[in-house]
Amino acid sequence: MNPAYDELRAVWTRLYRFGHLQALADWDRAAMMPAHSHTARASAMAEMDGLMHGLRTDPQLSGLLARADAEPLDPFQRANLREIRRDWRASNALPAALIEARSLAGARCEHAWRTQRPANDWAGFLGNFREVLRLGRETAQRLSDATGLAPYDALMDQFEPGMTGVEVDRVFGDLQQWLPGLVQRVRAHQSRDDALRGGPPAEPVGPFPAAAQRTLNRDVMSLLGFDFEAGRLDESAHPFSGGVPEDTRLTTRYSEASLMQGLMGTVHETGHGRYEQNLPRDWLGQPVANPRSMAIHESQSLSFEMQLGRSREFAGVLAPKLAAHFGAQAGFEPDALYRSMTRVSPGLIRVDADELTYPAHVMLRYRIERALIEGSAEADEIPALWDESMQSLLGLDTRGNFRDGCLQDVHWSDGSFGYFPCYTLGAMYAAQWFATIRRHMLPGSELDVHIARADFAPVFDWLREHIWSQASRWSTAELAQRASGEALNPAHFRRHLEARYLG
Amino acid sequence: MNPAYDELRAVWTRLYRFGHLQALADWDRAAMMPAHSHTARASAMAEMDGLMHGLRTDPQLSGLLARADAEPLDPFQRANLREIRRDWRASNALPAALIEARSLAGARCEHAWRTQRPANDWAGFLGNFREVLRLGRETAQRLSDATGLAPYDALMDQFEPGMTGVEVDRVFGDLQQWLPGLVQRVRAHQSRDDALRGGPPAEPVGPFPAAAQRTLNRDVMSLLGFDFEAGRLDESAHPFSGGVPEDTRLTTRYSEASLMQGLMGTVHETGHGRYEQNLPRDWLGQPVANPRSMAIHESQSLSFEMQLGRSREFAGVLAPKLAAHFGAQAGFEPDALYRSMTRVSPGLIRVDADELTYPAHVMLRYRIERALIEGSAEADEIPALWDESMQSLLGLDTRGNFRDGCLQDVHWSDGSFGYFPCYTLGAMYAAQWFATIRRHMLPGSELDVHIARADFAPVFDWLREHIWSQASRWSTAELAQRASGEALNPAHFRRHLEARYLG
Repeated sequence: MNPAYDELRAVWTRLYRFGHLQALADWDRAAMMPAHSHTARASAMAEMDGLMHGLRTDPQLSGLLARADAEPLDPFQRANLREIRRDWRASNALPAALIEARSLAGARCEHAWRTQRPANDWAGFLGNFREVLRLGRETAQRLSDATGLAPYDALMDQFEPGMTGVEVDRVFGDLQQWLPGLVQRVRAHQSRDDALRGGPPAEPVGPFPAAAQRTLNRDVMSLLGFDFEAGRLDESAHPFSGGVPEDTRLTTRYSEASLMQGLMGTVHETGHGRYEQNLPRDWLGQPVANPRSMAIHESQSLSFEMQLGRSREFAGVLAPKLAAHFGAQAGFEPDALYRSMTRVSPGLIRVDADELTYPAHVMLRYRIERALIEGSAEADEIPALWDESMQSLLGLDTRGNFRDGCLQDVHWSDGSFGYFPCYTLGAMYAAQWFATIRRHMLPGSELDVHIARADFAPVFDWLREHIWSQASRWSTAELAQRASGEALNPAHFRRHLEARYLG
Repeated sequence: MNPAYDELRAVWTRLYRFGHLQALADWDRAAMMPAHSHTARASAMAEMDGLMHGLRTDPQLSGLLARADAEPLDPFQRANLREIRRDWRASNALPAALIEARSLAGARCEHAWRTQRPANDWAGFLGNFREVLRLGRETAQRLSDATGLAPYDALMDQFEPGMTGVEVDRVFGDLQQWLPGLVQRVRAHQSRDDALRGGPPAEPVGPFPAAAQRTLNRDVMSLLGFDFEAGRLDESAHPFSGGVPEDTRLTTRYSEASLMQGLMGTVHETGHGRYEQNLPRDWLGQPVANPRSMAIHESQSLSFEMQLGRSREFAGVLAPKLAAHFGAQAGFEPDALYRSMTRVSPGLIRVDADELTYPAHVMLRYRIERALIEGSAEADEIPALWDESMQSLLGLDTRGNFRDGCLQDVHWSDGSFGYFPCYTLGAMYAAQWFATIRRHMLPGSELDVHIARADFAPVFDWLREHIWSQASRWSTAELAQRASGEALNPAHFRRHLEARYLG
């Protein structure tokens, strides 16, 4: 009945299946593969990339898309067609020569960055980065031409479709009004609290053997509903959520000196993993079944790590588990655990930042990368812009310290512009979901009572109904409206932070 | 200069790279994949099978092969072209409908067999197996038409190119002359030995914790030269050697009650693994770099497990390692260990058989499957043929015990006819390699002295030079001639067994 649509469906089913093998190879490379197998794996994955790119850039697709548009599709099929077109456009907007040049320049810059960062070598980095930026600007312009979006918006659209610089300015502008002041008030509050209690909270004291951490982390994942019949937890240098919805492969890493970092990393990845595992089974294989966006994905990991994981009630759930695995100690008492998991301390490094200061790191990067892409800043101005923002947002001096300043992230070195906002948009969405749950489902302290009992079912039911099962059925804006009755609203994030850190 | 050959080369390079992803997915399925991911994995691998089959059956290849034949190839290129043609023929000789029918009938029969075997349900099995056999005969006839070989030879040719029923009859005919008598003499010898020493050897007594076995098995693999920078050891229900030459994935299994079964399984797989890891790097990606044949592959696993692994000297190497990992005990003393590793005891089950009686199990299966394919026996005659051979070869009565008789192997249930001879041909080749090493390189007891010192370098050097590095450069017959100065000669296997079991 819809022959063009059906033909497109079949192409994307093939892509999904090839993508399964590619996702597995990617996970294996990070979690399992021995060092010397790198070249053979890279060749195999490049061959597959080429095959999949060839399928996505088949000249026949353009005509099929036009014909499918004119077919009598139902609303669900039309949503799938919209997502097919997004995927098609992403592969067809950029000429092969640009893709290759970006890949080479990014690989060169990223590879050199690994040694330039420890050497604090900004000048060396700049030499490679100018080309990465030039190609990033060209990419933005080409994507802009293909989508009709502004250049920076067109980059963001790859990760966060529908999001614009105007909208980010609106929510980050709001955030900037109150966040620096809130950080100061919370720090004063925590100092007074320490003084009242005779000092900062006891920290868990190791060593914590890796084997016991493995068991503990799996226990906590099971408690959080991760399905080990359709996924695994392994270890890698950088924790991630990979694999496919039917076989979700999470990784974490264990330090014998520090227990909570690995555990909260696992809780974070479990949020990503449950989103993947609960994407609608019947739709899998088609783009409409994809996770909605990276900010929505981060809203799941942060729902688990921040909304649930760093709550006072969850600390009470964790405490006896820690004692059972490693023996009782002061650092495992619920109150000490909660105080330590919510300690606010402005620092130079984004990935080590606490919940409250993390958005400042993101706002800073957003400002700079948008100016870079729009041409209102050049690469050599980055350090000065960085210093200025760190001073105004967190009151920290980073002058001359490139290593812990503008050289700290991998994102720019490999040309991934437009991703950073997703982290904080995700934190805001997470707060918005939980505000909705508290408002409509579990008013007053009912949610806290459930969490304290380790009964997360109402939360998971809400997330499943409103987020997981909806996949890419709606635009992000409509998803938010349907789930919470309103568009993205940073007020929920503010209320969450004030309640947790000043309450 | 050789445009047709170069084009073929490029096609097989692509196939090699796609094969890498497929091999990884296959390993993962057995060693890592959670249970509920089966369907998605099967779809992804079937899509890839289809893609690779499409590449191999591209109608253009037939013309390219003809044109490449007429190009001025050097001998190495000509060997590669021969192997390309073999691979092409294997995919093009059978119509798609037959491949599909075999796959369905094999899957149905194999699936039912899993419950029919424990239920001793021969009649039920026969119901499915008749169709598997019918399709096996049709396959043999079609392969025979494509290759000019006799039907059973054409099946063997898939695993053991160049091997014929006439040749198998020659070497198995020889074996049959002396093996039953040798088994009897060895059993009498071992009884007398037990009586002299006051009883059978002490057996290692468990439990042996899996974690300690993992460490021990990896230790022993390292001792045997396995490169963990280009491979791994994991666990699966059925041990195997998988992955790719650049990333060889072995598996074993651990029973806490029994140490030696897992360990000797690992030693066996390490032989397969070192062959793969030492295939010539410069040739990888082309069929000429493939392992020569399954009998040659088995000759490597059996060189490790039987020629080295069950020698008196290797028992002396293992003994202190076992004691170091699990504490000293009588079962770990070198002499007890050696006596227990070389105990001969005719039994019903092939996979549990000792080195000496194993070939009887293979000869029996070869006789029956050849008669089935050639039409001189029908499926319902299998139990009678089985009983008769078990009686004459090993003196065992299997009447009515289908479970431990003709229902014990998976091979026939899924239609893999023609593989069984490779096991014993491999054992013979292994004996022939070691006879050559003893004759030309390390005469007298020199080899034993090296093994006792855990100095396996001369053996590995010989295998690397004569087997591993030669890959599929020569026919199997020429490989044997070049390596050992003669064609396959079962006399070496006989001398090895007599020396070990009566010496």
